[in-house]
Amino acid sequence: MLTFWFEFASTYSCLSALRIEALAQKSGIKVRWRPFLLGPIFKAQGMETSPFNLYPLKGSYMWRDMERQFAQMGLPSLTVPEAFPQHGLLAARIATLGMREEWGKDFTRDVYRAQFMNGKNIGDSTTLAAVLTGLKLNPTAIIESARSDASIKAELRLATEQAQALGIFGAPSFTASDGELFWGNDRLDAAIAWQIRINAKQS
Amino acid sequence: MLTFWFEFASTYSCLSALRIEALAQKSGIKVRWRPFLLGPIFKAQGMETSPFNLYPLKGSYMWRDMERQFAQMGLPSLTVPEAFPQHGLLAARIATLGMREEWGKDFTRDVYRAQFMNGKNIGDSTTLAAVLTGLKLNPTAIIESARSDASIKAELRLATEQAQALGIFGAPSFTASDGELFWGNDRLDAAIAWQIRINAKQS
Repeated sequence: MLTFWFEFASTYSCLSALRIEALAQKSGIKVRWRPFLLGPIFKAQGMETSPFNLYPLKGSYMWRDMERQFAQMGLPSLTVPEAFPQHGLLAARIATLGMREEWGKDFTRDVYRAQFMNGKNIGDSTTLAAVLTGLKLNPTAIIESARSDASIKAELRLATEQAQALGIFGAPSFTASDGELFWGNDRLDAAIAWQIRINAKQS
Repeated sequence: MLTFWFEFASTYSCLSALRIEALAQKSGIKVRWRPFLLGPIFKAQGMETSPFNLYPLKGSYMWRDMERQFAQMGLPSLTVPEAFPQHGLLAARIATLGMREEWGKDFTRDVYRAQFMNGKNIGDSTTLAAVLTGLKLNPTAIIESARSDASIKAELRLATEQAQALGIFGAPSFTASDGELFWGNDRLDAAIAWQIRINAKQS
């Protein structure tokens, strides 16, 4: 099993979220989706915000590169959100709940679409409620759980701690079942190939 | 014509240097190799050393990723140099001279091999002399020119200024003839594809 570590504010995590399942299914690999928070991980490295803000040249290149990646994947046009990075805590808590049930992956993909195709603010609960409604779920109950359920908070905190323990420093990241770490959407194919080799040895 | 911007201390520039000509020839694309210095460009972004040193988690991941990239390219084992980043000024000046003549690309590739396969210090002129000797060139005369020829110094300074003017913030970078910028060895194929499309429109 490959683990897909994603942060909702992360642009390149969006690309991986939109393509990982098709790749995994083609390869016969199972993927565990794990939302986590980059904020504490950036802070531990001495960064108070995204490297794309700390290094503006890199930031403006990233948006251009994202445009090209969207075009290459045949996606609708990229919309640069008004604020970046966005506040992904509530979305991450909802996704943590959704991964226990059946709708976590659809929710995640739709939140990324809302953010980077429709320019919505995913830190705003009305955006998340609209995504949940679009999936025919009950936004009021789910958002209430995400805000108050201690087990969800603990699970998300644990995910962030486990990411850090695995040496993860950015998103998206992928870890194979032997702990091998791959960083970035550009390494998704390599991560899948690595997991295939592990599975082949074990079978 | 695609421009390949490289810095001698840069690990991922090594990967591009070792594969760009085969890719370009297969695609019928001409490549101009331009050595430049990342130091002033990092400084202008507020970084006093490589991001791989500023962010050690990213640094240790990079070496592991380089090992995997070497294996994937069928190269001999990666040797992590004792000091990183190395002082690439003299090598860049020699390469600037070599690009005016016939031996600049061979010199560049052999300096990367010395650094990342044989663990040599490329800031040491004896390493560079050995590379030049291996290419059946006169190391004494070439190193003397590289150290004293004002036109070489000016050309390298201009390359670094032009890189900065193009928005380059890291290495390797590739710029197409319309100014489109691609960053990183992972974007080499995309850069070539972009240049092919430009050439097709013009023909």
